[in-house]
Amino acid sequence: MNLHQLMRDLREDNGSKIVLVVADGLGGLPLEFGGKTELETANTPNLNAIVREGVCGLSVPVLPGITPGSGPGHLGLFGFDPLEYRIGRGILEALGINFQVGPRDVAVRGNFCTVNDAGLITDRRAGRPATERCVAMCQKMQTIKVPGVEAFVEPVREHRFVVVFRGDNLGDDVNDTDPQALNVAPLHAVGVDANSQNTAKAVNHFIAEAAKLLKADGPTNMITLRGFARYPKISTMQDIYGLRAACVAVYPMYKGLARLVGMDILDAGATLAEQIDTLKKVWDKYDFFFLHYKYTDSTGEDGNFGGKVEKIEHLDAEVPHIRALNPDVLIVTGDHSTPSKMKSHSWHPVPTVLWAKMVRPDGAVEFGESFCLRGGLGQFEAKYLMSLAMAHAGRLGKYGA
Amino acid sequence: MNLHQLMRDLREDNGSKIVLVVADGLGGLPLEFGGKTELETANTPNLNAIVREGVCGLSVPVLPGITPGSGPGHLGLFGFDPLEYRIGRGILEALGINFQVGPRDVAVRGNFCTVNDAGLITDRRAGRPATERCVAMCQKMQTIKVPGVEAFVEPVREHRFVVVFRGDNLGDDVNDTDPQALNVAPLHAVGVDANSQNTAKAVNHFIAEAAKLLKADGPTNMITLRGFARYPKISTMQDIYGLRAACVAVYPMYKGLARLVGMDILDAGATLAEQIDTLKKVWDKYDFFFLHYKYTDSTGEDGNFGGKVEKIEHLDAEVPHIRALNPDVLIVTGDHSTPSKMKSHSWHPVPTVLWAKMVRPDGAVEFGESFCLRGGLGQFEAKYLMSLAMAHAGRLGKYGA
Repeated sequence: MNLHQLMRDLREDNGSKIVLVVADGLGGLPLEFGGKTELETANTPNLNAIVREGVCGLSVPVLPGITPGSGPGHLGLFGFDPLEYRIGRGILEALGINFQVGPRDVAVRGNFCTVNDAGLITDRRAGRPATERCVAMCQKMQTIKVPGVEAFVEPVREHRFVVVFRGDNLGDDVNDTDPQALNVAPLHAVGVDANSQNTAKAVNHFIAEAAKLLKADGPTNMITLRGFARYPKISTMQDIYGLRAACVAVYPMYKGLARLVGMDILDAGATLAEQIDTLKKVWDKYDFFFLHYKYTDSTGEDGNFGGKVEKIEHLDAEVPHIRALNPDVLIVTGDHSTPSKMKSHSWHPVPTVLWAKMVRPDGAVEFGESFCLRGGLGQFEAKYLMSLAMAHAGRLGKYGA
Repeated sequence: MNLHQLMRDLREDNGSKIVLVVADGLGGLPLEFGGKTELETANTPNLNAIVREGVCGLSVPVLPGITPGSGPGHLGLFGFDPLEYRIGRGILEALGINFQVGPRDVAVRGNFCTVNDAGLITDRRAGRPATERCVAMCQKMQTIKVPGVEAFVEPVREHRFVVVFRGDNLGDDVNDTDPQALNVAPLHAVGVDANSQNTAKAVNHFIAEAAKLLKADGPTNMITLRGFARYPKISTMQDIYGLRAACVAVYPMYKGLARLVGMDILDAGATLAEQIDTLKKVWDKYDFFFLHYKYTDSTGEDGNFGGKVEKIEHLDAEVPHIRALNPDVLIVTGDHSTPSKMKSHSWHPVPTVLWAKMVRPDGAVEFGESFCLRGGLGQFEAKYLMSLAMAHAGRLGKYGA
């Protein structure tokens, strides 16, 4: 009996509403010994109110010590064991731009880069070109013919694009061609098994043609590819939880993750206020709302402690507008920690608060790592957040007589 | 290496005694924000003394968010993963009335109900008849002949009885005939696979005969059946832990659960004082004593906060009599929470205290959800309670050299 089957067996529809707010990279660290984290430094009266009336804890995204990317981080929050469900970057990028990936497809993330006359990379992001240029270069590459394989080239933004290779017997166990270093040439693609060798052959052909085509288009005169991935087999939120689920996110990656598990992707606007307006408009149509807030992560990645504090305070200011919708369960958490001190994702457990009528209170009074450490949810694996949400929403029946 | 095999490999017999007191549905919730739970409200000087000298924590019966029935709740406490061992209601009821279920049997729980002239249910419990009437009606149904199958009809109490269908190739994947609603007719039994279709055929024959037989016996003029179940494969406490185990329970369901894992079922009387007297009488004959106390659950189910507080205080008053027996390990816990506020079982972790000489103290001073949240056992899966009990009883050797 696995967790998803248990959910299918026990779920009940009572019309209740669950809102999951993911503040990306929410968890942090103090800059100095004895100091406070970003979340503890921020003035968050509205989040504190939820903590006082709710129950808090620390979410362990994958396992102790494991730092997740956005994919595993979010899959865990949606109730999928991130070690069982592994989603390649190519698939995530393709989903994020609304590309309908199919069973004969291998998707991969592409970057425009700059190479010198010797073919060595001098800028891994080609000076971050304008998105219009990215679109034009992708159109140019769309003319490339690969024997026996269709190649779709889709712009994302700036230096980023997606290629989907469609054909029979294409595997995805192929190395990245991005060497992640300067002054070296892009790598040759090599497939591990027979099907992946088919893919590698098509990929190397594609790259060689692209190199010729873009030769005079510096700084966007070369490409690298990484994250070859086939479409994974994964159940939907509707199938597992019986929830009509909607995603209100701004960035492609998170839309892609939500689409993967069957959420409807709503046109969310560009700001938190617009995202919440979208929530309001579709409130009656859905049972579950995934609201993604990016900027707690990006400021953390930039090492901008004060900026992250501000972004948390901005989120806090919008919380009353979410509460005004009167959800039955409101969760605020992150997909992982991104301490400004580290300028990167980290393994540290993520502050989490769950508000609902039937919580058992835990005496916590502020939203922060220290209170969450002593919270009533304890330290829990992220994959159990959805069963906790379903229980508190009154959507789970009793297991066994 | 699973947990049970580990126990078999490491166990040692040192003559120590373990008492497991299960206060059914022990965990609760405050009625109002800022209030105390039932257990925190109760005046429990004797339980508090155990907490001060012992170690406490919160037991998670199945998984976060999962509300267990009595079966999974108790199996967890006995050290069985409740997701691996699933016990049908029919088996539990049959075991609880001392019926010796065998490998050719399918057992099911029956209810007398009242139907009107149109055959629609007007009372799902037939007005809760006296047990004597239940006995008489079961004797009447015992005359029913089912072709190729033996049917044993055994009274439980009030409107409740058990039917055991004995024959070859009888499966238990059969739906409940209880529609769990009024003004509808009892459902027809349908088997999912071939063997279960054999069972369904026998069941429908039995029900049709019962309907004729009881026609004039209103309000007990019809029956519903639910929880068809074959006898599960499960190891005994003796086999896993090397413990001579005894059950001192009043209600059939809990005797049934204990018999299932090989405990001897003792004649316990009807009160806690009588149960403890029984314990005293057989103290030398057993190593492990399961004492079940029902009323913390039934008051919770009734939404009777004050009543639950009283029942907890009643338990507390008897604790010194258990301690007087000088057990090596004394555990007080519950199989799940039953908050009066919810009038039902719930998923909230269950307050637990373990007293033994070699505990590491945790500073807790009162038995309650808040202290248990910060207790030395942390939040732990119920299935680990027995290995903790064995360890503190000095009954587990070292794992590995």
